[in-house]
Amino acid sequence: MDTQVNVAPAAEPAQLLQEPPHPARHEIDLAAVLHALSDPIRLRIVAGLAAEDARTCKSFDLPVTKSTCTHHFRVLRQAGVIRQRLEGTTKLNSLRREDLDARFPGLLDSVLRAAA
Amino acid sequence: MDTQVNVAPAAEPAQLLQEPPHPARHEIDLAAVLHALSDPIRLRIVAGLAAEDARTCKSFDLPVTKSTCTHHFRVLRQAGVIRQRLEGTTKLNSLRREDLDARFPGLLDSVLRAAA
Repeated sequence: MDTQVNVAPAAEPAQLLQEPPHPARHEIDLAAVLHALSDPIRLRIVAGLAAEDARTCKSFDLPVTKSTCTHHFRVLRQAGVIRQRLEGTTKLNSLRREDLDARFPGLLDSVLRAAA
Repeated sequence: MDTQVNVAPAAEPAQLLQEPPHPARHEIDLAAVLHALSDPIRLRIVAGLAAEDARTCKSFDLPVTKSTCTHHFRVLRQAGVIRQRLEGTTKLNSLRREDLDARFPGLLDSVLRAAA
């Protein structure tokens, strides 16, 4: 998925170069996913990622502060709804559509349809 | 749906004989529904109501206190996921399947499949 993990040449602190933790597919929990999706801002983020992959937090024009935005992306990542990967110091976000479809068939599509 | 609202003969206080408030179909909000479904106990309740209609709070063998159980049913009712109606002093609960299917096609089915 990502072959450019170490783009930044030793200028950044080590923790910025690590991928943040993600649940494995079999660890994705229904209640946690539904909770992650149960917020209007996070629904907008998920709809945005469904339309266009690998977007940054900043690229969403959301009516929240940067730290709130970061929080929402973290909730989505920890629930297994999105994947966050680093390119240099930029965090790119994408929907874990394949994992979600395998784990809970039809759920993501029905939520996206309902949120449209 | 219910033809026996006034079974108890004037022995109960007036507020017990009133139907609790429910959102109209068009008022049912996606984020609120997802939040209502984002709890393992409430998912069990919804799955139970999908299998058998018009059950009482007590008829669910849930590992929670009566007041917690009441709370979960209230969250589901306020989100528009279930309907609560009174028969005498008993609160009967049923899934608002038709309303949910009309509002968010496929959502309830995918959640029930995932929760099974």
